[in-house]
Amino acid sequence: MPRHLSSLLSPHAVAVIGASPRPGSVGGEILRNILRFGYRGAVYPVNPNHHEIDGIHCYASVQDIPDPIDLAIVAVKREQAIEVVRDCGEVGIANIVLITAGFKESGPEGARLETELRDTVARYGINLIGPNCMGIINSSPSVSLNASFSRFFPKPGDIAFISQSGSLGETFLEFFERMGLGVSLFVNLGNRAGLTENDLLDGLDDDPNIRTLFLYLESFADPHTLRSLAERIGQGKRILVLKAGRTRAGAAAAASHTGALATPDAVVDAFLKQSGIIRVLSIEEAFVALRALEHPTIPKGNKIAILTNAGGAGILAADACERWGLKVPRFSAETRETLSSFLPEEASTGNPVDMIATAGARDYERALRVSMGEADAALVIFRPPVVLAEPAEAVAEHILKAASSKEKKPIVACTLSETDIVQPFQERLTQAGIPVYTMPEAAVRALYFLYRVGKGQAVSEPEADSFQPDRGRALHAVEEAKAAGSPSLSFSQGAEVLSGYGIPVSPYTYVDEGKIDEFIQKFGFPLAAKIDSPGLFHRFERGAVITDIPDRSSLENAIGALEGIMEEEGLKGRILLQPMLSGRELIFGMERDSLFGPVLMFGIGGTLVEALQDVAFGVAPVHLDQAEEMIRSIRAFPLLESFRGQPAVDIRPLSLFIHRLGRLSLEIPEIKEIDLNPFIVGETAAAVDILIRIE
Amino acid sequence: MPRHLSSLLSPHAVAVIGASPRPGSVGGEILRNILRFGYRGAVYPVNPNHHEIDGIHCYASVQDIPDPIDLAIVAVKREQAIEVVRDCGEVGIANIVLITAGFKESGPEGARLETELRDTVARYGINLIGPNCMGIINSSPSVSLNASFSRFFPKPGDIAFISQSGSLGETFLEFFERMGLGVSLFVNLGNRAGLTENDLLDGLDDDPNIRTLFLYLESFADPHTLRSLAERIGQGKRILVLKAGRTRAGAAAAASHTGALATPDAVVDAFLKQSGIIRVLSIEEAFVALRALEHPTIPKGNKIAILTNAGGAGILAADACERWGLKVPRFSAETRETLSSFLPEEASTGNPVDMIATAGARDYERALRVSMGEADAALVIFRPPVVLAEPAEAVAEHILKAASSKEKKPIVACTLSETDIVQPFQERLTQAGIPVYTMPEAAVRALYFLYRVGKGQAVSEPEADSFQPDRGRALHAVEEAKAAGSPSLSFSQGAEVLSGYGIPVSPYTYVDEGKIDEFIQKFGFPLAAKIDSPGLFHRFERGAVITDIPDRSSLENAIGALEGIMEEEGLKGRILLQPMLSGRELIFGMERDSLFGPVLMFGIGGTLVEALQDVAFGVAPVHLDQAEEMIRSIRAFPLLESFRGQPAVDIRPLSLFIHRLGRLSLEIPEIKEIDLNPFIVGETAAAVDILIRIE
Repeated sequence: MPRHLSSLLSPHAVAVIGASPRPGSVGGEILRNILRFGYRGAVYPVNPNHHEIDGIHCYASVQDIPDPIDLAIVAVKREQAIEVVRDCGEVGIANIVLITAGFKESGPEGARLETELRDTVARYGINLIGPNCMGIINSSPSVSLNASFSRFFPKPGDIAFISQSGSLGETFLEFFERMGLGVSLFVNLGNRAGLTENDLLDGLDDDPNIRTLFLYLESFADPHTLRSLAERIGQGKRILVLKAGRTRAGAAAAASHTGALATPDAVVDAFLKQSGIIRVLSIEEAFVALRALEHPTIPKGNKIAILTNAGGAGILAADACERWGLKVPRFSAETRETLSSFLPEEASTGNPVDMIATAGARDYERALRVSMGEADAALVIFRPPVVLAEPAEAVAEHILKAASSKEKKPIVACTLSETDIVQPFQERLTQAGIPVYTMPEAAVRALYFLYRVGKGQAVSEPEADSFQPDRGRALHAVEEAKAAGSPSLSFSQGAEVLSGYGIPVSPYTYVDEGKIDEFIQKFGFPLAAKIDSPGLFHRFERGAVITDIPDRSSLENAIGALEGIMEEEGLKGRILLQPMLSGRELIFGMERDSLFGPVLMFGIGGTLVEALQDVAFGVAPVHLDQAEEMIRSIRAFPLLESFRGQPAVDIRPLSLFIHRLGRLSLEIPEIKEIDLNPFIVGETAAAVDILIRIE
Repeated sequence: MPRHLSSLLSPHAVAVIGASPRPGSVGGEILRNILRFGYRGAVYPVNPNHHEIDGIHCYASVQDIPDPIDLAIVAVKREQAIEVVRDCGEVGIANIVLITAGFKESGPEGARLETELRDTVARYGINLIGPNCMGIINSSPSVSLNASFSRFFPKPGDIAFISQSGSLGETFLEFFERMGLGVSLFVNLGNRAGLTENDLLDGLDDDPNIRTLFLYLESFADPHTLRSLAERIGQGKRILVLKAGRTRAGAAAAASHTGALATPDAVVDAFLKQSGIIRVLSIEEAFVALRALEHPTIPKGNKIAILTNAGGAGILAADACERWGLKVPRFSAETRETLSSFLPEEASTGNPVDMIATAGARDYERALRVSMGEADAALVIFRPPVVLAEPAEAVAEHILKAASSKEKKPIVACTLSETDIVQPFQERLTQAGIPVYTMPEAAVRALYFLYRVGKGQAVSEPEADSFQPDRGRALHAVEEAKAAGSPSLSFSQGAEVLSGYGIPVSPYTYVDEGKIDEFIQKFGFPLAAKIDSPGLFHRFERGAVITDIPDRSSLENAIGALEGIMEEEGLKGRILLQPMLSGRELIFGMERDSLFGPVLMFGIGGTLVEALQDVAFGVAPVHLDQAEEMIRSIRAFPLLESFRGQPAVDIRPLSLFIHRLGRLSLEIPEIKEIDLNPFIVGETAAAVDILIRIE
């Protein structure tokens, strides 16, 4: 247990303030849970109205307790809460779990009280969990503390569970207990007026007994802290998040539940992926993933061997594999031949290997040994046949033999049944670290999570971009626009900002600079002419862009026409010439999210993409490999590959541009929004239109 | 029970041929199951080696049985199977369930035997289930027959379960029993050498005790029969299908498992939707759907009210609703006010209605009454709080009160817990026809299935197309090409086919017809010129199309260039002129699937769509409303709506064209493939390029 959280999570002495003998009182329930689940430390009930509760001496106030207290569990009326917290601070109690509700979640008066509470704990330097929470649990045998009103107390294990919600927290605890999942720590965060999920992650980082951190969240306390914590912790531990409020309906509900602001879920998704955090989408999926993550071995790739004694289940498993991006490779002729040598004629050997109902323990062992040579992981389906030739344990033992003999590759099993016959099979394998599921789809999902963990761990250090940005040059352009009171940058100012950060811009000249001839000489026709006016955002729709100008006289006409528009619309601005660049049209963008900060956007340009809303997001900073994944993740990505005679686009420089846009957005907070649309990639790559809005 | 299947599924006397006292013998297991589960009819074991089994007289052969037998269960060695079937036929037994394996699934000799078996049952007019199956079950109290080697025997109810797989069949039976789902009939089809799923659907159509037909299939015996059966049965009953082999990996496994041919899953999906059959994608989902379908009430729309005493679960439920296309409408100010009048300050009233943990039975009743006014269905989440103010049954009773008082709208409940406390809550509601799930995501999925059933039932009769096709005109063109030995039709022949079926074609003229001037006069420039040669499939890539021809002299040049290409490549063909049509580019297509027949395809044209593979399928015949759904289902559909200043495309004629292409494909089987790419829709709609391949 890390030092600064150890007196909170592994206390030697706890006070229960608001304890009561009355059945149904929350303080009373907590006291009884502390006693019932065999807390190893000392308990001090506090309640001025009682001298004794459940045979234990009860103190009138926390000041009366003669011994030092590590943790106070406070379950008093809302009106008394802050005074009690102050009392605790005065006697030097460093940790409080405040169960009491009626704060921020209950209206303006509660919100006022919560502010006062925050001030109070800050003054005394108290670690506060809550308010409005159900408490904490530490089921490690050396502590055995259920300082909550949960009826459930999971067996100890290497999972720490941090839940923003109390009721869902207890639901998870019930099923952790039922599934026999080892969960040593449970913390219900409640309103997070003191400690947040980040403080707990930080504190648990160097706890050698915790391998998996599971978070149920409805909002993020501070996403950037979470990300840097996850990047640090993720090297040794696995972080799993169930984030509720994914959809508009859910987010609205979450916002009214927690008072937190909603962020588009695609951004949350991108953010969690960038942070190396595994996301689950439902309660059931969380159970599947947590069971899978108990497994010590992580697959190196996504090739799955499926062995079964029930053909239909093999097919459903293969279907599920493809759905989750896992491969079920057809085995080589050699492997198939080896399998045929001991399996009956009716068996299928291609993968899934359907060994038919007569398959015995030795068949499982041999088939597993042979199949593992061509896969990164295996799914073993053993459905107890009507007539058991040998006990189910024997099948488990032989599976384990095959598992132990090879280089470590994960195996997941499935039984299609929950009868007594499968019980020993399931127990034997689970004990040996092979997760067993009832249904094939869940087992495949488990393999998928293991694969995801592997992929997350395989991510190397963020690659460096050797380009040295010229922040001063960029900042100068921004300040120039700001000084002029403009809401956005001119093209040339935008070009300065982008150039300062190594993002290429189309060649251009302003007509009023008098260098048209040189420009034509250098780039030739056709050209494009456009009005560059900071107030003008939708140039195309306003007729302020003329493209494909074929010759000098057309150019004069075009300039005349644009001057006409400027005059007519009373636009202050200049006329810009650019060569017509050819290539694929891309879009790069940035918007500032109030919670996540700069969010980068990438997409392929053109009307169809606009209609399809086919874009990828990334939260700054975007590492190079993350930027590359953004680019590859859009549905229209095949258009960037070699397509209809056009050569494939080089992804590397595009990744660099996304990375640099992120850096630029972080380093120049005055920039509110960036839109490079179109950004053309052909023989050269360049931003053709630049919109940069500033505060 | 329908008459022609009643002696099979509700027999008065059964013979078990191959019965044996030997433990572990299949025939013995079946005999014991028949006795153990209390079969109401007479049982006649048959085995020449025994005089008595389990205290029952055993006959040496089926000829020795003195009484008439409705059904013979045959579990003999493969070598004896056909002889036994013949014996049964000779003594006039009309129904056989052939358990014996080793037929088609086991190699060439087995396949030969299966052909012989088919011939034999056809000769005697026997209803055959199997071979290679685990048997049948009828759990209705008046029959109570477990004529299978399944260890499980679900309670009677209105579900009939027809499974191609035996092992998955037994898995389902185990969980049906465990869940208390009422399943009166189970048939394991096995190799389907006799009866198929279609025969059973047909036979069960007028069985008033069956409301839901659940099929597990790895392949379709005959999809078109299934479709017409489903269209007939679907008016009164609900058909649910779990079709394995959805993905490439799964289909490969299914093909090797059942020897059946694989069809692209998108086509299967379209086909099931067109047939009004509900598809589930996993075993778990089948359980959720079957539990939901026990519910008698179907929602009229997709607006869901969510009531909860646990905020987090409400958010997860709202997330799940949006994922499945259900709406969680924000309640009106009036409703919110009414809810506020009796709920505590901390409650959320917008929907989800979070009544917080203190909510009592009366709160549930009142909130349900109020909320149902603004929704088509409700999800009620009741998580037993730590301190129960009233028993959970009371909450159930009050939910039922609210449920009964209103017009019939479905309610689904969820408990987030499986403790003893929720047991009576769950029992009371289930009894009254309200399905109860543990987790909110499953409960929402249940509402989704109920909604889907409602949508399926709401489909009106196929709308008529008033156009009278001229089959003769189309057929003439096809026969002309056929007589010329051409693999595909010329443009003018294709135009004849399409025109015969009311599908518009771009105006055109052949250069060698000498009517160029008239054509130019009528349509003006720009024009397109292309080589029309039946062997030339990819015109664009071969330079055989010249577009945007601006004037007469360019036209001469274009014609000269195309003549050059024809000469150079030795192409036999003619040069075609067309006006340049403007509008949205679409693609219509048809390919013949070996199992499903003509499959229609619709997509939006252009390179991006090609890269995205964004197309919709339909199996002919495609009714008009189904064609419209195809068009609306493509991701790029927003491009057909009013977009960037272009008016919305009229969908109705496009639906007609899909419908007519289907009709044409059904009526002219010589046509192998159709590709109308592009088909332009602007001021007019017309096929601009026509490829029609023939046999």
